[in-house]
Amino acid sequence: MSASYDAAAVAALADQPVSWQDKALPPAWWGRTVREILADRPRLSQLPTPLLTLSGPGMEHNLATLARWCTEHGVELAPHGKTTMAPALWAAQLDAGAWAITLANAFQLGVARAFGVRRVMVANAVISPLQLRWIADQLAADPSFEVLVWADSVRTVEQMEAARSAHVGADARPLDVLVEMGGAHGRTGARDVETALAVAQAIAAAPTLRLAGVAGYEGAIAHGADEAGLEHVRAYLQSLADVHTQLADLYPADVTPVVSAGGSAYFEQVAKVLGPLASTGARVVLRSGAYIAHDDGYYREISPLGSAPRTDGDRLIPSMHGWVRITSQPEPGLAIFDAGKRDLPFDEGMPEPQLLRPRREGESPTPLTGLAVSKLNDQHGFLRFPEGEPPVVIGDELRVGLSHPCTAFDKWGLIPVIDDPDAADPVVVDLVRTFF
Amino acid sequence: MSASYDAAAVAALADQPVSWQDKALPPAWWGRTVREILADRPRLSQLPTPLLTLSGPGMEHNLATLARWCTEHGVELAPHGKTTMAPALWAAQLDAGAWAITLANAFQLGVARAFGVRRVMVANAVISPLQLRWIADQLAADPSFEVLVWADSVRTVEQMEAARSAHVGADARPLDVLVEMGGAHGRTGARDVETALAVAQAIAAAPTLRLAGVAGYEGAIAHGADEAGLEHVRAYLQSLADVHTQLADLYPADVTPVVSAGGSAYFEQVAKVLGPLASTGARVVLRSGAYIAHDDGYYREISPLGSAPRTDGDRLIPSMHGWVRITSQPEPGLAIFDAGKRDLPFDEGMPEPQLLRPRREGESPTPLTGLAVSKLNDQHGFLRFPEGEPPVVIGDELRVGLSHPCTAFDKWGLIPVIDDPDAADPVVVDLVRTFF
Repeated sequence: MSASYDAAAVAALADQPVSWQDKALPPAWWGRTVREILADRPRLSQLPTPLLTLSGPGMEHNLATLARWCTEHGVELAPHGKTTMAPALWAAQLDAGAWAITLANAFQLGVARAFGVRRVMVANAVISPLQLRWIADQLAADPSFEVLVWADSVRTVEQMEAARSAHVGADARPLDVLVEMGGAHGRTGARDVETALAVAQAIAAAPTLRLAGVAGYEGAIAHGADEAGLEHVRAYLQSLADVHTQLADLYPADVTPVVSAGGSAYFEQVAKVLGPLASTGARVVLRSGAYIAHDDGYYREISPLGSAPRTDGDRLIPSMHGWVRITSQPEPGLAIFDAGKRDLPFDEGMPEPQLLRPRREGESPTPLTGLAVSKLNDQHGFLRFPEGEPPVVIGDELRVGLSHPCTAFDKWGLIPVIDDPDAADPVVVDLVRTFF
Repeated sequence: MSASYDAAAVAALADQPVSWQDKALPPAWWGRTVREILADRPRLSQLPTPLLTLSGPGMEHNLATLARWCTEHGVELAPHGKTTMAPALWAAQLDAGAWAITLANAFQLGVARAFGVRRVMVANAVISPLQLRWIADQLAADPSFEVLVWADSVRTVEQMEAARSAHVGADARPLDVLVEMGGAHGRTGARDVETALAVAQAIAAAPTLRLAGVAGYEGAIAHGADEAGLEHVRAYLQSLADVHTQLADLYPADVTPVVSAGGSAYFEQVAKVLGPLASTGARVVLRSGAYIAHDDGYYREISPLGSAPRTDGDRLIPSMHGWVRITSQPEPGLAIFDAGKRDLPFDEGMPEPQLLRPRREGESPTPLTGLAVSKLNDQHGFLRFPEGEPPVVIGDELRVGLSHPCTAFDKWGLIPVIDDPDAADPVVVDLVRTFF
């Protein structure tokens, strides 16, 4: 058993038989375990369409790249596990040195507990008495379990304390709470330093809570990477640093305060503004989640290690792809494929046609240009191209690039990992189970 | 065992224990079976947020209403099962007299076969040799199993025939194929009568296929219900009827030809234009799927039995709701709640704030006006309201109306069914398992 998660529980996922419930897999595999299937080194061509795959080497590269980048920049990483909801990928992130797994809510925390994840940051307020009681029970049952939650108002702190003090005694382990600092026109988070300090004081005064640091999310403050947007992000991060500095006397003596920000879009700005706090005793924690899969859309554009890099280090590799089949070619310039909103992400840009799979054995994939996905229905996609000789025919299989890992992973309960998305017929090297 | 599905397999779903994998349920219920849980008549207040629920009486009303409407209008119903992917709801639809279940692809057909659904229309071409072989094996293994698929081009027919004739003998049960008629600027489907006739001739000439009718989807032709849109829909449906009429001599003598169209938006037009074909020996089959849940958005507006009805019969009742909790109130006019793109549909309009749940026992829900959901992130929602005294506070629970059942159901593996969404604390009367 690893120190940071239950390795046996993660490994046991490979002993589960697959079934008709797994839409990524062919009927011939139903009833076999993941381990048995992988022993045959199956090929992509044995799988049905539509399909989502991950690239094994790509993810390994991305894991190592961000781990190294964090080390070099003096920050720690608590990758946001909501991106993948895949305990096997969380395990890989923890094995690569992650300090904790970040999650969004109590359900996701339940999944993490089922796989023994020892340290979790819930990057939200937990208000529900039901969920606060369950977290209290988890803290009581497992002395090694650590959890940090956020609060952005005095009322939130009062509700947390009321639910906890009605449930646990004064000698119970306290719940660690970070003050959440927000920004104008952002999402959650106190909108000014004064409010944030009042929240911190309320946490410090609450008998069953413990003030554990400051947190925020710069990804809600900007959506582009022009200099004005980056300046806006830095100003916000500086306010977060200011709150932390002003809390120095409020932190309990036995706490290493956490200062946390950083999605996958602006983590270089976080390291720049918050990184220096590490030398004053703070633990500076990034929470990037999308980096493990990266993408061919939003994150390719905006990541500091994407197509227009803004920091030193290797570029991340887009490591998730869709595979679709042309099922209709009803009019010039239009083909319909067999994947839709149930299969592929569509909220941060449409899938990008990239490759035509070999039509015959022995051929290579053909790069596609001049095609665009114009629309997805529930179970269909619309592929547009110039009229004239069509670049695809009915029966063709295409690889598409995708934008936004969070809304790609959540459409698949089991995701094949392949050895090389550019290969003529990639080998399936793993099957990753997700829990949404 | 029912004649139309495996009632024992559906009933067995209630014997499965729930777990940390079921995000709709509280930890206190993990390890208990659905049957055990329901025996306690639990209340909505025992469930976590965010949550999706269905209304039991609402769905019963909708099931009975459309079944009656179809009988009165001389058409049959093969409800599109992709909407819910819930075998227990398919069973209710079949019990209400549905002729078949419609599905979108081979994966969904696999789910239907796991629950013994006897007759399935796959409202798409099936091109993949892998999937065609599996369907052939299913037909061979179960003489009572009936499946109909679509084709909209000669190439599609050729690919189907090639895959099948390489796999089954000449004496195998043929695969029933409907010619798919489309319309300009629509989705799949032959764009003119001439092409459709050529497809039909190809099917009729293919040794392992059987021409079984004509199909199409008018929902891809229009998106509004103004008179111009409805006229466009009728013209399209008439072309579908024309194809059927011209196929009279091609249908095998032992086939009752199926003529199928009809989503949940224009089924009254389908009955009007295609219904008369029933008297000439055709089986006219609607495929509406969304009607069972109906909604507070797209379908409320456009359904012939919605808020602006275009046909006789009871109105459908919106029977799915989201339940969310306010977790932050960071600036005037803005509150953040705990549900996002992972929890609630957002592709056909944002959730609609409807009710504030009682803050104290003994109170009633309060109707909400003047609030709007402006945006969903992955795990957060943005609630906007006029500045001034805020209508909600942190900790409040809200009911929201939803738009588009297909993208609501697919976010939940287990969906509580309640007795009355307007009650102060509804009783949970069922837990419906979905398979996406």
